[in-house]
Amino acid sequence: MTSPMYTASVPVLRQLLNSLLAILDKAEAHVNDKKIDANALLQFRLFPDMLPFTRQIQIAADFAKGAGARLAGQDVPSYEDNEKTFAELKARISKTLAFLDTLPASAFDGAETRAITTGSGEKTKHWVGQTYLHHYALPHFFFHVTTAYNILRHNGIEIGKKDYIGTF
Amino acid sequence: MTSPMYTASVPVLRQLLNSLLAILDKAEAHVNDKKIDANALLQFRLFPDMLPFTRQIQIAADFAKGAGARLAGQDVPSYEDNEKTFAELKARISKTLAFLDTLPASAFDGAETRAITTGSGEKTKHWVGQTYLHHYALPHFFFHVTTAYNILRHNGIEIGKKDYIGTF
Repeated sequence: MTSPMYTASVPVLRQLLNSLLAILDKAEAHVNDKKIDANALLQFRLFPDMLPFTRQIQIAADFAKGAGARLAGQDVPSYEDNEKTFAELKARISKTLAFLDTLPASAFDGAETRAITTGSGEKTKHWVGQTYLHHYALPHFFFHVTTAYNILRHNGIEIGKKDYIGTF
Repeated sequence: MTSPMYTASVPVLRQLLNSLLAILDKAEAHVNDKKIDANALLQFRLFPDMLPFTRQIQIAADFAKGAGARLAGQDVPSYEDNEKTFAELKARISKTLAFLDTLPASAFDGAETRAITTGSGEKTKHWVGQTYLHHYALPHFFFHVTTAYNILRHNGIEIGKKDYIGTF
């Protein structure tokens, strides 16, 4: 039987990352269509001390690879945060999806109680897999996906809840 | 052993609903402090065709009680959508938390494969519990919690990611 820790993570992360890919396509088409400076969206923040759109996407992708890798007992691959265009953000998500595809479901057996460490220095936190996934990684992941979506909606991009939920 | 369907749902829903309670307290304090018309926040939308703050809270609460009830094999209690103040929205969330507290973890045994129906008429959908929870109920729940949070942040309420994550 597939581990419930796999069922609750990788296929869900994949669903929402694929939604982001489709949403980024629509945002890029909107920008081209209206001849808008892409940075007006890529650097948009819902409030001055919130993170801009590009960071929301990067962090969503990071929580996806972090959750997948840690629950599978692997090192978390390190990606640079150097994306400056819609195409580069899509590549970042595609790279994250490709990484999730390398994780065999069987590696998640027993991940409920796997010891997981996040952060470093004073910010180091110790978890068991189950708490890490349900109470930390997924809530943060959904937060950044939704905030990216909300930034685009606030700027008039024609997307809807169906684009967020995507296909599964 | 506690069912993974319980572990992945009720304690997580409770975490974020409690976050919403604390966030609503801060929003209410802000409104009182600045002598703002509460409806300026309660009816605020991030874009004209998005739902206002009050509906985001109501729908988040609905996904919580819907997920809890359906996975536990119970009828979903019906609550009126008549909240008009911060106090009433907090009461709606507290009522939802009290309902989740009535669900014994043992009722979630085998919920992975439980047949679940949502919607009615042409919008009727049939699920098994696992797909319903991970790919539909939780993504929608987090969407509405985050959008409520983003509406407040966009309006300058001093809350942060810690308020969203809350305690667990």
